[in-house]
Amino acid sequence: MILDPLQDPRVVIPEPALRRLPWYLAYVSLLRQKGVEYVSSTQISRDLSVDSSQIAKDLSFLNIKGKTRIGYEVASLEQVLQNFLGFRLSHNALIVGVGSLGGALIQDSGLEQFGLNIVAGFDVNPQIIGRTICGIPVFDVKELELRRRQFAAEIGIITVPVQAAQEVADKFVAAGVKALWNFTPFRIKVDEEQIVVQNTSIYAHLAVMYNRLNLSKIRSHFSGEGDVQ
Amino acid sequence: MILDPLQDPRVVIPEPALRRLPWYLAYVSLLRQKGVEYVSSTQISRDLSVDSSQIAKDLSFLNIKGKTRIGYEVASLEQVLQNFLGFRLSHNALIVGVGSLGGALIQDSGLEQFGLNIVAGFDVNPQIIGRTICGIPVFDVKELELRRRQFAAEIGIITVPVQAAQEVADKFVAAGVKALWNFTPFRIKVDEEQIVVQNTSIYAHLAVMYNRLNLSKIRSHFSGEGDVQ
Repeated sequence: MILDPLQDPRVVIPEPALRRLPWYLAYVSLLRQKGVEYVSSTQISRDLSVDSSQIAKDLSFLNIKGKTRIGYEVASLEQVLQNFLGFRLSHNALIVGVGSLGGALIQDSGLEQFGLNIVAGFDVNPQIIGRTICGIPVFDVKELELRRRQFAAEIGIITVPVQAAQEVADKFVAAGVKALWNFTPFRIKVDEEQIVVQNTSIYAHLAVMYNRLNLSKIRSHFSGEGDVQ
Repeated sequence: MILDPLQDPRVVIPEPALRRLPWYLAYVSLLRQKGVEYVSSTQISRDLSVDSSQIAKDLSFLNIKGKTRIGYEVASLEQVLQNFLGFRLSHNALIVGVGSLGGALIQDSGLEQFGLNIVAGFDVNPQIIGRTICGIPVFDVKELELRRRQFAAEIGIITVPVQAAQEVADKFVAAGVKALWNFTPFRIKVDEEQIVVQNTSIYAHLAVMYNRLNLSKIRSHFSGEGDVQ
């Protein structure tokens, strides 16, 4: 039985497990840098506060086996995780909306380490079109289809104001991208059988944080504890 | 019965519902800009592809009622959502790690619209310390506690390399912040009874996107469809 989903389309790792794998990767990369050779799921569990049976289950989707009483070889686990997560491949991406967030993503060298290669930006603002940011050219959004083919880009990143999100999504799909990374809080509609959509709304995370912060204040008020500040 | 969690600590909105509220907010803000006065949950449902009973349930956590056969008043719903989500308050935040992502967040004017006021940056790099980015001063991380008090900041943002994440989290907690927004893929450990932790690892979202993209390629291969590009 082949357990690598790149080889066997029937094995689909559940998204919560998939989202935990980058934690393990960040952790084992640190261990390797410190010269640690082996790590057990018990140790990972202690350091990351994730249940150890959960860890074993998550890692069972990978093509790696731990040794009894020694655990996983750190360097191999790092490599297997990087491969599995697609961080060692280079994925060409286009970004529409070179405002503050879009410009920031172009400048974020971290993305390249994780296999995302932003090759071009697009905007409607004549003051931005024609410029380059960190060596990345900014084109008129009218050239999207042409440039998509030229760069063989599969991923479209959406960092436009919310009212333009759907239009840009439609343009990306028409231009032939296969995945959309949507940073707006707008729920874009595309044929999700054909196009992968990943929503990353950092503002939604802010809302969750504010809400919990308020609850914790209320709780400490009710329990009679003093508030700091 | 008071249904506003700011007033009643017993009513806690589940996180998945909380995360959907910003979608509704983005959507009703667009409607208001277009001059639409009323919207029904059926219409929201159609436009956002969220089940309408789900929408009614999510909105039941808010202090607003729709009118039969007319729906919700758009302007009121927008205001109630903004208030509930904390986007109309100003939350002072400090950011440690003024590299590419940290610098980008400081420059992202979008955050301010959502109530996040980054008042100061901190770094260990002498070439960055003492500079200002978009009017925001960058201090030595040694001054964290002093500046935290000075700015009455409640939120600490972590945008350092993964190996420094835990140390910075500990420093923020010692300095007195009540919430941590962690952009590293490292699982920081703090007393979550006392400190709110929000993890936003955009690289984990990349992994999910790559994985689904691969699966969709395999599926179209197996179903005999041609691959674009």
